[in-house]
Amino acid sequence: MEQNILDDIKNMEKHVGKLSSAQKILLTTDGSVTTILDVLKGHVHINTLIQEFVPAGKEMARNLDIEEGEIVNYRVVVIKSDLEPLIYAVSLVPIKRLDKNFKEDLIKADIPIGRILKKHDIESRREVISVFVEEDDENLREIFNTNSPMLSRIYYIIHHDEVLISLKETFPYSLFQE
Amino acid sequence: MEQNILDDIKNMEKHVGKLSSAQKILLTTDGSVTTILDVLKGHVHINTLIQEFVPAGKEMARNLDIEEGEIVNYRVVVIKSDLEPLIYAVSLVPIKRLDKNFKEDLIKADIPIGRILKKHDIESRREVISVFVEEDDENLREIFNTNSPMLSRIYYIIHHDEVLISLKETFPYSLFQE
Repeated sequence: MEQNILDDIKNMEKHVGKLSSAQKILLTTDGSVTTILDVLKGHVHINTLIQEFVPAGKEMARNLDIEEGEIVNYRVVVIKSDLEPLIYAVSLVPIKRLDKNFKEDLIKADIPIGRILKKHDIESRREVISVFVEEDDENLREIFNTNSPMLSRIYYIIHHDEVLISLKETFPYSLFQE
Repeated sequence: MEQNILDDIKNMEKHVGKLSSAQKILLTTDGSVTTILDVLKGHVHINTLIQEFVPAGKEMARNLDIEEGEIVNYRVVVIKSDLEPLIYAVSLVPIKRLDKNFKEDLIKADIPIGRILKKHDIESRREVISVFVEEDDENLREIFNTNSPMLSRIYYIIHHDEVLISLKETFPYSLFQE
């Protein structure tokens, strides 16, 4: 674990209060978040809120190491248990790096990315870029039906030495407290 | 997460009592355990107890998908915080699947495997084979200085579609309770 990420976790605790073990792990793990949610909350599923193809703007292109204007799959989902929304996730995937089967699963079906990677036996590594307390966001407050502070992280899933998926995940401090 | 692993977690709870979120995650994650320990316990380090090369017996060869007699690196370590032992880990690595730099780090230095993989930017996937309550083991009781039941899992780290590392990790039920 990089020291700067550990330091940022400590800074988050100064803002929102002590983080639970589960919260710390969800913010820093390089493993599948779907797998963690499955064991903590029972088999989870997703609701896709947005699913579209967009040309990369300047910043997006730089982050993903592609050319401006290249097409990116932009997906916004809520990962939920049978009871409640758990994690709000925004993913960016440069479509030129997707093989056909992965692309179909990403576009057609409500399958969490962790499960798609597993299904296709994709070898990868994950790099946590940042963890932080989210700015006040009405949309997130509505989705989770809480005024609790929101905890976020941004990370990359790297495959063949390139960013295959850039992810931002957010959950309220009121969840995963034990 | 495969259903049989989730069922086995429930069975373990019948034997030892309720597992905490951190315990469930440590037993089932497909991410780096070192990374999780770093964020929960501060930067961890390892003590190497055994480090040798052994010819694969019949069962080991079958599990690793190598020929009987091929050489395997057998390493037993304790991952510790500054305060206490946290996880007892046994790893098997067929040396023909190791590149030179990885091999040097594995043999020469007290570096946790998760950190070696990260250092060399190795893309992989992890497959949890089994989770279970350990048979009574005096060695483990001594290392952790407790009579608490021991929780174990076996998993593979797969790289280039082959088992690069087979791992067994064990920790006492008395640890990671929150």
